[in-house]
Amino acid sequence: MSAAQHLFRPKSVAIVGASETGGSGWTGAIFENLETHGFPIPVYLINPRRDELWGRQVYPDFASLPEPVDLALSIVPAKAQPDILEDGAKNGLKCALIYAARFGEGDDAEGRARAERLNGLRREYGLRVCGPNCMGALSLPERLLFYPAARVRALPAGSAGVIFQSGGTFQYWLQQAAIRGLGFSYAVSSGNELDLDIADYIDFMVEDEGTRLIFCMIEGIGRPDAFMAAAGRALEAGKPILAVKIGSSELGRQSTLSHTGALAGDDDIFNAMCRQLGVIRCPTLDGLIETGLAFNAGRIPAGRRAAMSGYSGGAKGLFLDYAHQQDLPLAQLSPETSAAIAPLIDVGLAPENPLDTGAGVAGRQNVFSQISQIMAGDDGVDLICMQGQLPLSETETPDPETFAAVARLGKPVIAHGRMAQNVTEAGRAFQEAAGVPFVLGLPETVHALKALGDYGQVRRRGLRPLGAVDANATRLDSGALQDLLGARQIPPPKSAFAETPDEAAVRAREIGFPIALKIHSTQPLHKTELGGVKLHLLDENAVRQEAASMGERLEAEMEGFLVQEQVEGLELLVGLRRDAQYGPFVVVGLGGVQVEAIRDVAFRLLPIDAEDGMDMLSGLRASRLFGEFRGRPPRDMKAAVNAILAFSEIYLAYRDVLEDMEINPLIVLGEGEGVRAVDLRTVWR
Amino acid sequence: MSAAQHLFRPKSVAIVGASETGGSGWTGAIFENLETHGFPIPVYLINPRRDELWGRQVYPDFASLPEPVDLALSIVPAKAQPDILEDGAKNGLKCALIYAARFGEGDDAEGRARAERLNGLRREYGLRVCGPNCMGALSLPERLLFYPAARVRALPAGSAGVIFQSGGTFQYWLQQAAIRGLGFSYAVSSGNELDLDIADYIDFMVEDEGTRLIFCMIEGIGRPDAFMAAAGRALEAGKPILAVKIGSSELGRQSTLSHTGALAGDDDIFNAMCRQLGVIRCPTLDGLIETGLAFNAGRIPAGRRAAMSGYSGGAKGLFLDYAHQQDLPLAQLSPETSAAIAPLIDVGLAPENPLDTGAGVAGRQNVFSQISQIMAGDDGVDLICMQGQLPLSETETPDPETFAAVARLGKPVIAHGRMAQNVTEAGRAFQEAAGVPFVLGLPETVHALKALGDYGQVRRRGLRPLGAVDANATRLDSGALQDLLGARQIPPPKSAFAETPDEAAVRAREIGFPIALKIHSTQPLHKTELGGVKLHLLDENAVRQEAASMGERLEAEMEGFLVQEQVEGLELLVGLRRDAQYGPFVVVGLGGVQVEAIRDVAFRLLPIDAEDGMDMLSGLRASRLFGEFRGRPPRDMKAAVNAILAFSEIYLAYRDVLEDMEINPLIVLGEGEGVRAVDLRTVWR
Repeated sequence: MSAAQHLFRPKSVAIVGASETGGSGWTGAIFENLETHGFPIPVYLINPRRDELWGRQVYPDFASLPEPVDLALSIVPAKAQPDILEDGAKNGLKCALIYAARFGEGDDAEGRARAERLNGLRREYGLRVCGPNCMGALSLPERLLFYPAARVRALPAGSAGVIFQSGGTFQYWLQQAAIRGLGFSYAVSSGNELDLDIADYIDFMVEDEGTRLIFCMIEGIGRPDAFMAAAGRALEAGKPILAVKIGSSELGRQSTLSHTGALAGDDDIFNAMCRQLGVIRCPTLDGLIETGLAFNAGRIPAGRRAAMSGYSGGAKGLFLDYAHQQDLPLAQLSPETSAAIAPLIDVGLAPENPLDTGAGVAGRQNVFSQISQIMAGDDGVDLICMQGQLPLSETETPDPETFAAVARLGKPVIAHGRMAQNVTEAGRAFQEAAGVPFVLGLPETVHALKALGDYGQVRRRGLRPLGAVDANATRLDSGALQDLLGARQIPPPKSAFAETPDEAAVRAREIGFPIALKIHSTQPLHKTELGGVKLHLLDENAVRQEAASMGERLEAEMEGFLVQEQVEGLELLVGLRRDAQYGPFVVVGLGGVQVEAIRDVAFRLLPIDAEDGMDMLSGLRASRLFGEFRGRPPRDMKAAVNAILAFSEIYLAYRDVLEDMEINPLIVLGEGEGVRAVDLRTVWR
Repeated sequence: MSAAQHLFRPKSVAIVGASETGGSGWTGAIFENLETHGFPIPVYLINPRRDELWGRQVYPDFASLPEPVDLALSIVPAKAQPDILEDGAKNGLKCALIYAARFGEGDDAEGRARAERLNGLRREYGLRVCGPNCMGALSLPERLLFYPAARVRALPAGSAGVIFQSGGTFQYWLQQAAIRGLGFSYAVSSGNELDLDIADYIDFMVEDEGTRLIFCMIEGIGRPDAFMAAAGRALEAGKPILAVKIGSSELGRQSTLSHTGALAGDDDIFNAMCRQLGVIRCPTLDGLIETGLAFNAGRIPAGRRAAMSGYSGGAKGLFLDYAHQQDLPLAQLSPETSAAIAPLIDVGLAPENPLDTGAGVAGRQNVFSQISQIMAGDDGVDLICMQGQLPLSETETPDPETFAAVARLGKPVIAHGRMAQNVTEAGRAFQEAAGVPFVLGLPETVHALKALGDYGQVRRRGLRPLGAVDANATRLDSGALQDLLGARQIPPPKSAFAETPDEAAVRAREIGFPIALKIHSTQPLHKTELGGVKLHLLDENAVRQEAASMGERLEAEMEGFLVQEQVEGLELLVGLRRDAQYGPFVVVGLGGVQVEAIRDVAFRLLPIDAEDGMDMLSGLRASRLFGEFRGRPPRDMKAAVNAILAFSEIYLAYRDVLEDMEINPLIVLGEGEGVRAVDLRTVWR
């Protein structure tokens, strides 16, 4: 049974601290919310200083109740909570919803002691806690509104589960999402997550048949493993998780730390985790609603190629801009599609994707629908958005069939508005009749199309377990590691070890010029910074002279010289490491000393496949360096991808003994010429 | 008199092509719009096939009218327009508003001929044209609605001028902007701008006393000089121009002969022009409204430092994320301000900017107002946003004094909502009573704060003319140019010319090692690509050997060798050039071959000052390379700024004879050590 069962589906509930003014009127507000729905379950009031309230008997404590209750809504000051809940736990209480704060956030010894007592109640009696410092929970199928405000009564039932760590934003977001057309199953303001946390709530919602998608506002993930496991189950169940997460900036992260005491992970790694598990990160609270509406329609595209039809040239231009910014794959229409569309649109306009039909079609919605149907029918189109505006009142009477006819073709369809608008009862009714989500705003539309395509890709790929550790994995010496890499077509440059400058010069001649000379050390050092690397040496003389100079300066750090074939190509950095929260990951970026300053890098959680590898390289700002560029030949991108995969697999196999592996630079040669791992740094456990 | 005078303030108007069904009913719709306002000016109907319509006499042509009219609303097919308008022009017509398309867009010879005839009417009779391919114009002070839809009648009068090149978006944007609280003076769908264009309309609105800010949706600028002149007049008049412009995804189309040209996309230069003239570019149509509301309040801050107060930790975290993304300068509160705030906010929270007061203050709006007043009163705060939600109906009764009291302190104040919401009559009334704009959405709020601060900065700085060309400017030889640069503390590295490999070796010894060897050529060449540059040569032998090798390979391109002191430091590219549309600009970025691939660059239109130079460098992704980084010392950023200014001034002085000037690399040495211009490339006219 899910840990959150007694929070969302209690068979009975007690309001602790009930009084007219209890918790600034919160006890009364919640009682009224339950009363509105005719008390779907038995509701008891607890207050040792009262006998009767709101026409009901008031009990002094849990022991006096006629039956054990599943859930306590505990609306008393923090310091009174431990004693009261201990009384509850001893009398069969299963779960407590704690609204108050001050359970050890920040540097508060008293609060920490309180939290420790609650943890003790969990260990001894199995008492679960929602909160503290939260605003309550809503179970719409059970009509239980444990929330101290009347406005939640208007929320419609539906298939959206909601988990917000930010209590202040919770009800306003729900209200606006309802105005936009979303309905809800279970929703919780999860607060500081002393016990029950976002992973538990996701688990509950994955198990709940009525919940089909899950919305989160995240400040920090307390149990990354549990979160990832829950997100994995959601992926397998086909229940998309959409999230706004605070902390994309360093400063935002600090604010989160002080706010909830939860640890926000590094944002790059969090994004990599989202990508691996199909969690859809939304940039804004409005975007969470708009992209949510697109997913709420329940259709996931078979591919990522998006089409757009509209009757505004300006909107087409803006759409292209946002598609470029967000990297949305655009469908290429077939010649047949273009030929079929051409006679239907205004003269002089191009029958292409994205499509501007011209203003002449704006007033002929049946033609616009026909055009959109032709585009949606193109085999190269996986999903489509078509221009649409919700009516503001009953007096406007657009025809929902314009959209419904396109939706009947079976692919995901979004109606896109150019900007925000008021959404009324008439608007929602039209959206319902049209059978397609009306997404407000062009950047939001592009985000929704991109998210649908990306999610479909992750769904098709499915969960990817990390794979077994190599049972024989032990620390490898550098020769054995070179052999492993060589077997995967990642040879090092020709190289030799030398003890003296003279020997270095001899080895250099044997290898052939130009030569790269490096100090050799068993310490993990940034050799370039130390002046321990000299490149492009052209003759024995230069090698001898540089080696002598290094020897004088760096005697303490070095054990000899590494004499290497100088390889010319595109320099990459490939790093593998375990994130403390989300596990093994790979980072790829431009090599060289500027990589860190520019941060032109791509992260993925392991494992990855060739498509991921190619995506990582293509997503770099400098990706054009892989093509023909300023007279340089195109690079062997396939070999680079192969190398990234090989490093990742080796790292995973050895991850029990290997802490960190970094190849910098990995030199990518011309097409068909492969790669060279020039400098390989390993940190063994 | 402004060119658009007869469009916006005609003394009489004729509807050409008037009939029940004329222009798909457009003539009737416009007639009704004029009728609704009681025909503020004489309205004549022209149609040779009718005698009477809507209870009025219909005239066969302009000659038959009882008086010459100022403006014709010409709602007939394109092919009929030239003859009709010639009749008009001959009979005193001053301006024609042409709704139809097909005047030479695309590759249409007939259309081009039509356009040429209209141009002829302008030359011969002074007839001005609005459109073609537009949706009309609105003059709210004159109550003239030359727009074929009833919905524009509901638009409120106000101080916003509107110029949209995209006709399809025009009325929907106006409608939504009105819902949000904007009112309008003059608005035009400017269409294909055959004659009257955005510059003319801006000029009209700058001259109009009732217009206080100007909104644009731009697809292209036909007359960049006129646009810049108009924008300059708007800046001097203190009338902010806000614009959405299509085309941020356009890649550079300019010559790839130089890095500078290849780096400069049209959009980069457009942005640089906006920055120079204080034009506020908005990322979305909704953002145009939200930032517009912030400017509509009429207050420009005295500085750029923004503060934020709210009672949601989640909103604070998101605000910080968006502030980081958009580079918003955040105010640092004084110790006195923090001390005054501390006792008013929830225990455990930090009295800092941005501020989360905690949920305890949410219900005590008088305290929240008091806190916001204290923050707004801090000398370190130039403008402030405070959390606020518009009431949805009359039943919600928040106190506008919460906001009005903060506004009375005189600084710009924005009330920020966390997301979009429906805005009703009650909401607008509250916004009016509060006296502050309610901006919906946190990214939108950050954009508005940033835009207000940036605009204030440009206003204080004022217009900056390009300055005079040096009257004696003639093509300089490289020695004279070096002298100019040397006088501005931009010396080159020590260097010498050599004709033969042996001579190169001798010069190298005289200069001292390490040495950089380059081919010398009078052609503009990318030497690195050709293999015509060798760095870090350590002795005479290496210099001789490399020179010989270059000589064999590059004999055709070269005239000799450049032997240079090898200087180690941070490599920048500084490029100067004239954009065909917007004039002289400077680009600064990381030097080296990867600069073009990564596009970590900053553009400014000339002239610039030291503050611009510092902003450019600080805005680079790689800006941390100027500080201490990985054991390298901090760089002489001041000298780099000085060099950028010097190059810019020299370029401006010589711009009549100098096409292009590029320094790549400019080596920035350690603090106090200055810069070296290693490779200076000039293209003289």
